[in-house]
Amino acid sequence: MSVQAIAWSANAAVRIVDQRALPDVLVTRDLESAEAVAEAIRTMQVRGAPLIGITAAMGLVVGLRNDRSAPREAFLAGLAEKADLLAGTRPTAVNLHWALDRMVRVARATPGDGAALWERLQSEASAIWEEDRAMCRKIGEHGLALIPDGVKVLTHCNAGALATGGIGTALAPIYLAHEAGRQVHVYVSETRPLLQGARLTAWELAHAGVPCTVITDSMAASLMRAARVDMILVGADRIAANGDFANKIGTYGLAVLALHHGVPLYCAAPSSSIDASLPDGDGIPIEERAPEEVTAVAGRPVAPPGAQALNPAFDVTPARYVAGYVTERGIVKPPFGAAPA
Amino acid sequence: MSVQAIAWSANAAVRIVDQRALPDVLVTRDLESAEAVAEAIRTMQVRGAPLIGITAAMGLVVGLRNDRSAPREAFLAGLAEKADLLAGTRPTAVNLHWALDRMVRVARATPGDGAALWERLQSEASAIWEEDRAMCRKIGEHGLALIPDGVKVLTHCNAGALATGGIGTALAPIYLAHEAGRQVHVYVSETRPLLQGARLTAWELAHAGVPCTVITDSMAASLMRAARVDMILVGADRIAANGDFANKIGTYGLAVLALHHGVPLYCAAPSSSIDASLPDGDGIPIEERAPEEVTAVAGRPVAPPGAQALNPAFDVTPARYVAGYVTERGIVKPPFGAAPA
Repeated sequence: MSVQAIAWSANAAVRIVDQRALPDVLVTRDLESAEAVAEAIRTMQVRGAPLIGITAAMGLVVGLRNDRSAPREAFLAGLAEKADLLAGTRPTAVNLHWALDRMVRVARATPGDGAALWERLQSEASAIWEEDRAMCRKIGEHGLALIPDGVKVLTHCNAGALATGGIGTALAPIYLAHEAGRQVHVYVSETRPLLQGARLTAWELAHAGVPCTVITDSMAASLMRAARVDMILVGADRIAANGDFANKIGTYGLAVLALHHGVPLYCAAPSSSIDASLPDGDGIPIEERAPEEVTAVAGRPVAPPGAQALNPAFDVTPARYVAGYVTERGIVKPPFGAAPA
Repeated sequence: MSVQAIAWSANAAVRIVDQRALPDVLVTRDLESAEAVAEAIRTMQVRGAPLIGITAAMGLVVGLRNDRSAPREAFLAGLAEKADLLAGTRPTAVNLHWALDRMVRVARATPGDGAALWERLQSEASAIWEEDRAMCRKIGEHGLALIPDGVKVLTHCNAGALATGGIGTALAPIYLAHEAGRQVHVYVSETRPLLQGARLTAWELAHAGVPCTVITDSMAASLMRAARVDMILVGADRIAANGDFANKIGTYGLAVLALHHGVPLYCAAPSSSIDASLPDGDGIPIEERAPEEVTAVAGRPVAPPGAQALNPAFDVTPARYVAGYVTERGIVKPPFGAAPA
C-alpha cells in the first residue's frame, strides 16, 4: 500500500507529509495559509512536480478561506496575489504554473462573489488532486507492459507516491507490477544532494513491500556494465514539445550511461508536465539552489569552510536518449502538443 | 604548499593525518604498533593507494621496534606475521602488496639478526616514502604539459597529497601548474559514499590556494554537456597490464561520460600501481564495504531502517576510455610490463 502524500484536513487546511523528516519519522503537518504552503514548497517539505501543483492549488483554497465574504473583484485580486506568491517558489516544474493558471482561470469563469468563487476553487483543487490520482494509475497501467516478471529497474530521485497525489509516476508501473505478483527489484540511486532516492523512494517502496537496493549515484554505471539493470524509469519536472525533459540533477548522466550500455530509459509523467510552449529543453529554466545543500549533509559540513559549490537542482535530458514517455494517455513519442486545459 | 600526509614521529612511530576528521579538524595521530597501523588503513584514517603502501611499510618498522633483540629467524617470523596482518586490510590497491613484498624481500636479503634487519627495514620504508615523493613530483612534471593556462579540470575522489607521500598523483600536475602561475580551476566531485572529494580534495586544494568548486557526483554529466570541463584527471588503485584500471567507484561512469562528450580522461599513478600479473581489469578484486557507509552520512541514517545497499569501493575503467597514463616515467600507453622492484 503506497503512502498518501497530501490530503485536506477537517477544516480545509492542507495536510502534508513533511518530507524533510523522512525516513526518520513520518511528520504530518497542517498548513493554514498560502504563505505556509509557499514556504513548504520552497523548502521542499513537499516536492515532486505533480505534488507541487496539487499543493499549490490547495494552497490557494486555504489562503482564501478568510476571503469568502469579499466581493468578487477583491477576491480575485487576493487570488492573483496568492497565485503569484505560490508561482515564485520553484522555477522548473511546469505543473506548478499549470495548476495555478487553471485555478485562476476557473475562478474568473465562475460568476458570483467570494463565497461562490471559493467553493469553486475548493472543488477545482480537489479535482486536480483526483485527476492526478487517476493519472498516476493510468501511467501505472500503461507502464505495466514494460515491467516483466523478474525485472531490475533503476530509478532516480523520487517520482513515487511522495511526488504525486496518487501512486506516483515512475513508480506507478512498479507498484502495479508488485500488486500483480510480479517480482520487481528496484535500484534506488540516492540522489545527492537532498537524497530523495535514499530518504523517500527507498522509504515508500519499503512501506509498500517492494524490494529495493540503495546505491550512490556514482554506482549506476558499473551496475549497468555488470548487466544488473534492465531498464531505467524516471519522472520529469518539465517536458518540452520535442521531448527534451528536465528532471532531478543526475538524470542526464544516467541517460548517457543507459544509451552506452543498451539499457532503455523511460520518462513517466502526466501530460501536465508537458510544456508545449517550449520547442526544446534549452528554454527550461534550471533552478540553482543554495550551495550549502552540497557542502553540508544533514546539517554537518562535508567540505572545508568557504568551499565553492554548484547546485543545479535539475538537468535536461535530450529526447534522443529516451526510449519512450509513459503518460496517462499511453506510451507516447514526441512531438507533443498542448496539455489538456 | 600542499599538506604532508605522513611522517615518522621522534620515536619511530608512524605519524598520520587522521583523514576521517577532515575537513572539520586536522588531527595528527602517532601509531605505535602494526595493529594500530592496520586499523588505521582498514578504517581509512589513511587512504589512497600510494599512501597505503608507504604506511604499511612504515607499520612493519613500528611493529618490529621491540623485536630488535630477536634472533634472525624469530625476527623474520614476526615480520611475516605483521606483513600478513597489514596485507589483509584492503584488497584492491596493489601498492599495499607491492610495498610489503619489497620490505619482506629486503629483510630476507639482509644478513644479521633483528637489530640489523630492523635498521634495514627502517631505511627501506623511508626509501619507499622518498621514492613516492619523487614519483609524485615526476608525475607532476610529466603531467604539466597537459595543463594549459585557464584549464578546467575535473577530478574524482582524492589522488592528492593526502593519498601519497608527496604532492599526489592526479593533483600533482595541478599543483605544479599552480606554482608556475597558470590559472587552473578544479571541479571536485564529492565522491560518495565517503566524500573524499568534498572532504579531502577540496580541503587540500584550498590549503594550497588552488581554486576549486565542489559538485555532487551526479552533476559531472551536465557540466560536461555545458563544455565546462576540459579534461578529467584521476588516480588509480591498480592498473592491469592492458591498461584497465581500478579506481574509486564512479570513475568508470565519468570515463563513459567523458568519451561521450569528447573530454579526455587521464589516469595518473606511479608505476607501483601497475599489476603486470593481471592481463586485464576483470582480475582486479573489488572491495565491498559495509552498506552503512551508503545508508548513513556522518553517522546519521539517510535511508529507512533495514534498507539494503550496495557499496563497492571501486570500479574498473577499461583502457579504451583512457587518453593516457601519467606516470613518473612520462605519459605512457599500455601494454605495461612489471613495476621496478
